Amino acid sequence: MISYDTLMAREFAPVEQSYTERDTILYALGLGLGADPLDKAHLKATYERDPGFCALPAMVNVLAGPGFWAMEPDTGLVWQKILHGEQSFTLHAPLPTSGTIVGETKITGLIDKGADKGALIYSERSLTDKATGTLIATVAGTSFARGNGGFGGPTGPVKPVHKMPEGEPEVVFDHKTAPGLALTYRLNGDYNPLHADPEVARGAGFERPILHGLCTLGIASWSITAAFADGDASALKHLQLRFSSPVYPGETIRTEMWRDGDEVSFRARVLERDIVVLNNGLARLG
Amino acid sequence: MISYDTLMAREFAPVEQSYTERDTILYALGLGLGADPLDKAHLKATYERDPGFCALPAMVNVLAGPGFWAMEPDTGLVWQKILHGEQSFTLHAPLPTSGTIVGETKITGLIDKGADKGALIYSERSLTDKATGTLIATVAGTSFARGNGGFGGPTGPVKPVHKMPEGEPEVVFDHKTAPGLALTYRLNGDYNPLHADPEVARGAGFERPILHGLCTLGIASWSITAAFADGDASALKHLQLRFSSPVYPGETIRTEMWRDGDEVSFRARVLERDIVVLNNGLARLG
Repeated sequence: MISYDTLMAREFAPVEQSYTERDTILYALGLGLGADPLDKAHLKATYERDPGFCALPAMVNVLAGPGFWAMEPDTGLVWQKILHGEQSFTLHAPLPTSGTIVGETKITGLIDKGADKGALIYSERSLTDKATGTLIATVAGTSFARGNGGFGGPTGPVKPVHKMPEGEPEVVFDHKTAPGLALTYRLNGDYNPLHADPEVARGAGFERPILHGLCTLGIASWSITAAFADGDASALKHLQLRFSSPVYPGETIRTEMWRDGDEVSFRARVLERDIVVLNNGLARLG
Repeated sequence: MISYDTLMAREFAPVEQSYTERDTILYALGLGLGADPLDKAHLKATYERDPGFCALPAMVNVLAGPGFWAMEPDTGLVWQKILHGEQSFTLHAPLPTSGTIVGETKITGLIDKGADKGALIYSERSLTDKATGTLIATVAGTSFARGNGGFGGPTGPVKPVHKMPEGEPEVVFDHKTAPGLALTYRLNGDYNPLHADPEVARGAGFERPILHGLCTLGIASWSITAAFADGDASALKHLQLRFSSPVYPGETIRTEMWRDGDEVSFRARVLERDIVVLNNGLARLG
């Protein structure tokens, strides 16, 4: 059982993470960039001497996080039944290619969907450049705690999801993932065996290890700038989405997009199984 | 011009390198292991919770090295004309999956092949586990300094190369490299632009960036244990070879092998261009 007041007031120690250009390159390789080593846009993310070298904005999602805090007993959460439902990030300043980031996490909302459904947990993390004090990004997530409904908390307001345009997408961008991609991506810090261990994956009901949801998010983020910003990844200022279904490494992720000025509505689909894996996506370019 | 006495007596400061399981996995990924994430032998090198997880023996080649010391003016070397000719390594104890290694380098020989040919430089590095004082490995290399012949040094003895068996190989093992492999492999510490920058590669006379020679060596090392030790990489105790020609990432490396007890004679060939890239190879299993 969770307590609304206790969980809303939960304090998270600030997390400090130092990272190097090597880590920044490894993040990009973990999305499958560099697969074509002559592609100039790929080199901007994977080669530190490239004149356009920059950190991919979506890397903020893997920096200075609090870890899987839902496992800690004080939370009252049934952590085994938690799903990652939504994710968003907003860049306030460019992410440096190396440095030290301080992450400060808080719970921003708890919604009771009822005992038979579960609870929504909204959390948010600010990322600050330790050297300059500059606020770099705000990262937010929604977890769906299927085992924690009926705790007597508020039943709303639930954050609205982005409404998708109807009809066919205006632009699509395909990104073929390598079968071994999750083994590289996990070096960003999420070492959950579900992404590497065939037995653990089968035990969880998957035919083989699945790709990290945040890796799929990173691929969609890249795909949007590949489609609309000529591969200038730094053009991405905001992105939000809902996770629909897992991806198996080796599958092709098609990002389907509709542009309206600086805003891009998007979803992503796995071509091999024709299912939507990310939905209700909104990105902002600047 | 080089001075025999000065160069033979050159002192190299000990180099200390700490590495983590993440680095050990990244070394294996940089050889292309994990490309099939369901392959149990690959997982031993790429998944830290695998019961057989171990560091690949060939990783000793990238640990605690002295850097490209030939560029330092005191050596008298024309560093632009140096080629990496031969490499060998011998494991005295298993390489830990994480730890701190101390590398101590010395020059072990200088041969004058004449003003029109160049000089051979033999060097050797011992790798010691800092925590236990255990000698882990001896790594040796031969450089061919094409611009430094005729310095009045000894003309021998030149180290004999391993004599290859005649006829067709008994066993072959093919390893297809990914086009982007060098972008991962370089994160082991050799950031020479020749392996990443298309313009630098063209300027050096290559059609595109080439794979690191030590990456090809690592792939051959792996292939030998895949062929003869059921993918138990730790079975490899010694390996020596001569570099013949560079590999382009994306090509298929066929390791051709002849076994005689614990010893394996080998060479490696790129299938797409049918040229030998490693030759006079000898490996010892134990």
